[in-house]
Formats: sequence, C-alpha cells, structure tokens
Amino acid sequence: MWRYEHELDVRFCDCDPLGHVNNAVYLSYLEAARFSWWRHVFGADGFTANGFIVARIEIDYRRAALPADRLIVRLKIDTIGTSSFGIKYEIANVRTRELIAEAKSVQVAYDYTAGRSIPISTDLRARLEAAL
Amino acid sequence: MWRYEHELDVRFCDCDPLGHVNNAVYLSYLEAARFSWWRHVFGADGFTANGFIVARIEIDYRRAALPADRLIVRLKIDTIGTSSFGIKYEIANVRTRELIAEAKSVQVAYDYTAGRSIPISTDLRARLEAAL
Amino acid sequence: MWRYEHELDVRFCDCDPLGHVNNAVYLSYLEAARFSWWRHVFGADGFTANGFIVARIEIDYRRAALPADRLIVRLKIDTIGTSSFGIKYEIANVRTRELIAEAKSVQVAYDYTAGRSIPISTDLRARLEAAL
Amino acid sequence: MWRYEHELDVRFCDCDPLGHVNNAVYLSYLEAARFSWWRHVFGADGFTANGFIVARIEIDYRRAALPADRLIVRLKIDTIGTSSFGIKYEIANVRTRELIAEAKSVQVAYDYTAGRSIPISTDLRARLEAAL
Repeated sequence: MWRYEHELDVRFCDCDPLGHVNNAVYLSYLEAARFSWWRHVFGADGFTANGFIVARIEIDYRRAALPADRLIVRLKIDTIGTSSFGIKYEIANVRTRELIAEAKSVQVAYDYTAGRSIPISTDLRARLEAAL
Repeated sequence: MWRYEHELDVRFCDCDPLGHVNNAVYLSYLEAARFSWWRHVFGADGFTANGFIVARIEIDYRRAALPADRLIVRLKIDTIGTSSFGIKYEIANVRTRELIAEAKSVQVAYDYTAGRSIPISTDLRARLEAAL
Repeated sequence: MWRYEHELDVRFCDCDPLGHVNNAVYLSYLEAARFSWWRHVFGADGFTANGFIVARIEIDYRRAALPADRLIVRLKIDTIGTSSFGIKYEIANVRTRELIAEAKSVQVAYDYTAGRSIPISTDLRARLEAAL
Repeated sequence: MWRYEHELDVRFCDCDPLGHVNNAVYLSYLEAARFSWWRHVFGADGFTANGFIVARIEIDYRRAALPADRLIVRLKIDTIGTSSFGIKYEIANVRTRELIAEAKSVQVAYDYTAGRSIPISTDLRARLEAAL
C-alpha cells in the first residue's frame, strides 16, 4: 500500500522542553521522506525540472516520539489533480512499531523561474500515478 | 474577531534553499503565538497547572514569507469540547498586510503528571470561552 | 563599544528537553544579529554584492536562556584582514541584564558566482572599519 | 584515534537560502554524535546520573554540506580536568570523504537537581579516559 519509506533518527534538538519531538519537527520528517522520494523518482536534480510548492498540510499526532528513537516515514500519492497532487503519510516507531503520526500534504506544480503554478506535465503525472 | 496577536521576525535560518520560510517553521510561529497567549491568560507557570497536548494541526500556505519579514500571528478559540479545544490562526506580513497562512490546531487537556488526557476544567473553560 | 544591537524573543521550540535554549540555537541568534546588521549597512540586497561565508565560530555559554526570554545580541567588528574579518558578540537577557553568551565569528569575503574567496573590497573595508 | 562515530543524513530543512547546511546546524550534528556516544557509554538513562552542560564550542567550517549528503561525525575525549572535559570532533562526507568541519567542545559536569557544577566522579573519569 505504501509506496516509499524513509528512516531517520530523532535528534536531541528535535525535542522541546516537554521532552518529546516538537510538533513542528514532524513536518520536517514528512519533508525528509518527500524529498528522498522525489530524488528517488526524478534524480538528484529533479527538483529543478519538476518543482512544486507545498500548499497545505494536515497532521494528526498519535503518540510522542523521543530522543534517539528511530522513525520510519511511509508515503504514497493520494490524489492527482490538474495542477496539484496529494501525498499521504504515516510515521511509525521502527522498534515498537507504534504509530506516531498520520498526515496529508497538498503540493502544487510550480515553475520557479516564472514564479507561478503550472499544470502537471504528462511525465510528472505518469510518475505520480506509479506511486498511487 | 481575533483575540490575541503575536509579532515575530523571520530568522534567516527559518528559510530553506528555496529562499523562503520552510513550511515546518510556520508551525513554530503558531506555537510562539499560542505559547505567548497561554502565558498571557494563565501566567508564566500556567502550563504546569493547565497543560495540553497538540493533537492535530492543519495549515494552508497562502504566500511565502522571506528573511527579515516581520509577521503577525493572530488567534482565537474556535471550538471547545469535553476535553479538547480548537484554535484558529492567521499569519500575515506586518508591512504588506498580505496573508501568509491560515491554520487550525486541536489541543487536548492533558495531565502531564498522570500522563493522560483529562476533561477541561471549569476554570480553563471559562478562560477559553473568553477567547472565543 | 558595541556597534549594533538586535533584540529577539526566545521561541519555545528553541529550547530542548533540558528546558533551556539548545546550544546550537545561539548561533542562530548570532546570525540574526549579523544578518540584521549587514542589511542595515549594505541594504536589503547587500548580500548579493558583498557576500561572505562563515569560516569559524567560537562561543562561551555563560548562563541559560529560557522560553519567552527577550534577548539582545550586541556586535562589533573585531579584526579586518586581507580577505577575512572577525565579529565579536555578546548575548544578554534584556530584563535581567545577565550575560548569556559571548562569541566570535570569522567571515571570509566570498564571490558566490565564482565560488571562491576574494579580497575585501575597499568599500567593504571602509564599512567594516566604521564598525570596529 | 577517533573513539566514536555517528552517521546522519542532512535534512532539506537543515539548509538555508545559500543552499547548504546552515552554520548553526553543525552544532546539532555534534550534539547528535555526543548524545549517541553518551548513551553508548552510560546507557539510555546515563544523562540523569552523569549530567553535564556545554560551556564552550569552537568550530571551523571547511566545506559546505548539501541536502541529502550523508555525514559522519567522529569524536574523542581531548582533555579531562577537575570538573570539565573536552571533546574533539570532525565531520566528514561519507561518500566523498571530504572534511566538512572540525570542532571542540568543553563540558562541565553538572548536578541538574542541585543546579550547580560538580567534580567529575571517579566512574565518569574512568569512562572518559577510555575514550581519550
């Protein structure tokens, strides 16, 4: 069901005075997985040719992650529109397998040179569909 | 309509290789405003007596913020349930007045000593209602 | 003695599980002050014409800063060489006036287009000397 | 010569508008290695029994690290005093083996309950000496 996985270690500085990972940092974990997947699909310079901007994120926090936890972020393409596409994620603890968070993000295909959103290209659509 | 405002400066390191504020950092801006409001309402040690955990966040990115921009985060209480409450936010550019992002968060009243969610106390409810 | 001051608020997420500002974050405070000073001296696009890279930082931590503290970062030019210059800083608590940290950084004038260090220009030298 | 190694991936959000890892983030990399080593030597709750505070850091930046780079942080104990000890580090790119940064940090043994520095215990000294 999930189409890509990315593992990472919780850094001490990812955690706040409550002792667990700060809620903003989970979005960096989503980004790390998304960035890794994008490079996997499009190559190291894929972002230049196939840029996007993040338009929306929603995240449900299920359980706290702690310093030195190893996490896995799983993702798959959720929806593909004319100029936007959705990604669904889950973050789990590698050792305990407990679910840490669930999230969705909406991306808009974007031409960074022109500074405006663009339709999803045929090539991009094909690659996104492969990850549905 | 908005019940509390908090201003902050975009730090250079809040911005990523795309040149604008990284999408995760906006959640830190929401937190800065929420934290400041909480201290305003409950006092400096209010978090100990009236703790909560963030259960969900949704955010729509409207426009990029840049290094050295001064932003204002506005918030108000959106919903009050048995043990949870919602906060609504907007982030705007102080100088240009442009809307940067809109967001909602759901918090659950939480007893950090016992490690479990608790009903919203009468006192907390009264203070939240004042910020509806 | 100090040539430029920059105030900032400690964000909750700047703090780690020990409850105080994480030691790496103080370098972001130095950067915020340096960036603000650079814009003050050279204008908003000054970095393009007069770029530099940070080659070295040393910092002594004197006292912990806490969430919601308001800090002031003071700086002055310390040394000017052929292609590098040093900045000296102190960070203090605005309310209590206590010293939080002292630091030095060494910057190398850098041509980002050519990707190499360059001699400090006459213009840059004059402006740095004004902040000695 | 080096006594402990810790590998990590550069996150996209570790990088700033200049396109490379922000200079403050390297201190988080040092911390990640130090934290991992401390847990290796003292166990998961070692920090409670053998706490310390970071008193000083100096770092020389040799070469920029980029998004998705895999880095290795190597460390060893450098000096052991009455109540403080020094750690020496280098950060290198795993794939290219290029040196990214060299650093030193000074830690002071600290009793977090009492809120004051303490002499290095016999046990701590023995373990530090093993990593000289």
